[in-house]
Amino acid sequence: MATTNNDDPEYTLHEMHLSGNCYKIRLVASLLGIKLKLLEYNTLKGESRTADYTTRVNANGRVPVLQIGSDTFLPESDAACYYLASDPNAKRKLIPDDRLEHARMLQWMFFEQYSHEPCVAVLRFWRIFVGLENLSEVQRVQLPGKEQQAREALGVMERHLGEDGGRLWFVGKDVSLADLMLFAYTHCLGDSGLEIAEWPRVREWVDRVRGLEGFVAMED
Amino acid sequence: MATTNNDDPEYTLHEMHLSGNCYKIRLVASLLGIKLKLLEYNTLKGESRTADYTTRVNANGRVPVLQIGSDTFLPESDAACYYLASDPNAKRKLIPDDRLEHARMLQWMFFEQYSHEPCVAVLRFWRIFVGLENLSEVQRVQLPGKEQQAREALGVMERHLGEDGGRLWFVGKDVSLADLMLFAYTHCLGDSGLEIAEWPRVREWVDRVRGLEGFVAMED
Repeated sequence: MATTNNDDPEYTLHEMHLSGNCYKIRLVASLLGIKLKLLEYNTLKGESRTADYTTRVNANGRVPVLQIGSDTFLPESDAACYYLASDPNAKRKLIPDDRLEHARMLQWMFFEQYSHEPCVAVLRFWRIFVGLENLSEVQRVQLPGKEQQAREALGVMERHLGEDGGRLWFVGKDVSLADLMLFAYTHCLGDSGLEIAEWPRVREWVDRVRGLEGFVAMED
Repeated sequence: MATTNNDDPEYTLHEMHLSGNCYKIRLVASLLGIKLKLLEYNTLKGESRTADYTTRVNANGRVPVLQIGSDTFLPESDAACYYLASDPNAKRKLIPDDRLEHARMLQWMFFEQYSHEPCVAVLRFWRIFVGLENLSEVQRVQLPGKEQQAREALGVMERHLGEDGGRLWFVGKDVSLADLMLFAYTHCLGDSGLEIAEWPRVREWVDRVRGLEGFVAMED
C-alpha cells in the first residue's frame, strides 16, 4: 500500500476510475508512495460539465484533475503526473535528468496524447462505455480510421522497443513517465478491439510495467 | 535576425513551413536566437511517409522533427521546443523554475495538443490545404463537432486570460512555452473559419506575443 510523507499536501484526484487518463495519476502516485483521495464523477452523465465543476475545478470540463491542498487544481493527466514526479523528495526517479532523455520522455508523452489516446482510448470508450450499437453516425464513420491509426501507433511503439538491440523502456535505461503514460491505454488493448499479441515487444513491455514495485492495476 | 552561438550543434528542422506545429519550433528558436536549417516536405504528397523518412527521421511519419547534429532526431513539436528552451545557456527563460508553474506550462501544452490542435488546426488544414469542397464524407460529418470543440477551447483560453484580474500570459508573470504553443494556431484563427474578435482577451494576448523581441511570423 502507498504510504504518505507527513509533509505532503493532501492530494485529491477528481476522476472517473476506469478512465485510462485518470489511472495514469493513480499509477504514478502509487509508484511514488503518494496517497490520493479519490472523488468519482460519472462523466457520461455530465458530472464534469456542471457549472460548479467548470467554475471551480476545470474550465475544460474534463477529468482527471489533481487537486493540491484545498484550492489548487491541476488539469491534464500528463501535467499532473509530472507535478507529482517532480517533487525533489520523490522516493523514485521517473523523470530523467539528462536534457535529451527528458525531451524524449516528453516526446512519447505528447505522442501518447496526440497519436495514441485519440484512437486507442476513443475506440475503448466507444466499445466499452458507449457501446458500438449506440454510436452516432459521426462516430460510426470514424471507426475504420481510428482502428488504422491505433494500429499505426502500436506499430511505432513495437518498432521503437525493437531498435538498438531491444529496449526495456521507452527512454533511457529505466522506467519514466513515458512508459507509464503509454501503459494506461495499452495494457487494456482488448477493450479497444485490438489483440496485444500482434505486438509482442509491446506485450513484454506491458508485463515489465506490471512488475514494477508499487504497481497498481486500473481496476484497484 | 537570429544569431547562433558557435557552441550550438547544427539544428535542422524537418518541416512543412505553413504547419503551425512546425512554426512553433521556428518561433521558439527565433526567440532564443538559435539558427535552424530548414528542410521542406510536401506532406500532402506523402513526403513524410516515405520508407527513408520513417526509417531515418520519424517512424510516426510526421513533421516537424528537430534534427540535432547529424544523427539525433526529435519528433513532437512540443518536445522539440522544450529541448531548445531547456539549454542551460538559453539566452531567454521560456520554462519556469517553479514546480507548480512548470506543471501549469505543461498543462497548457497538453491542452493545446489534445483540446485545441485537433479541432482548430484540423479545421484550418481542411479549409486551407484540402479545401472544403474536397473533404471526404468522414471529414465532412465531423465539421460541426470540430467547430464546437474549437469554440470551447477558445472559450477556455478567454476565460483563463480574464481570471485573477486579467492575465498577460498563460502561466505566471512572463511568456513561457505555453503561450508560444497556443499561439501557433490561434494567431491564424481566420484560416480555421473562426473570427478572433469573438475572444477579445485572446486577441490582445496574440498581439502581445507578436510584440516579443525576436518574434518571427509564420510566413517568414
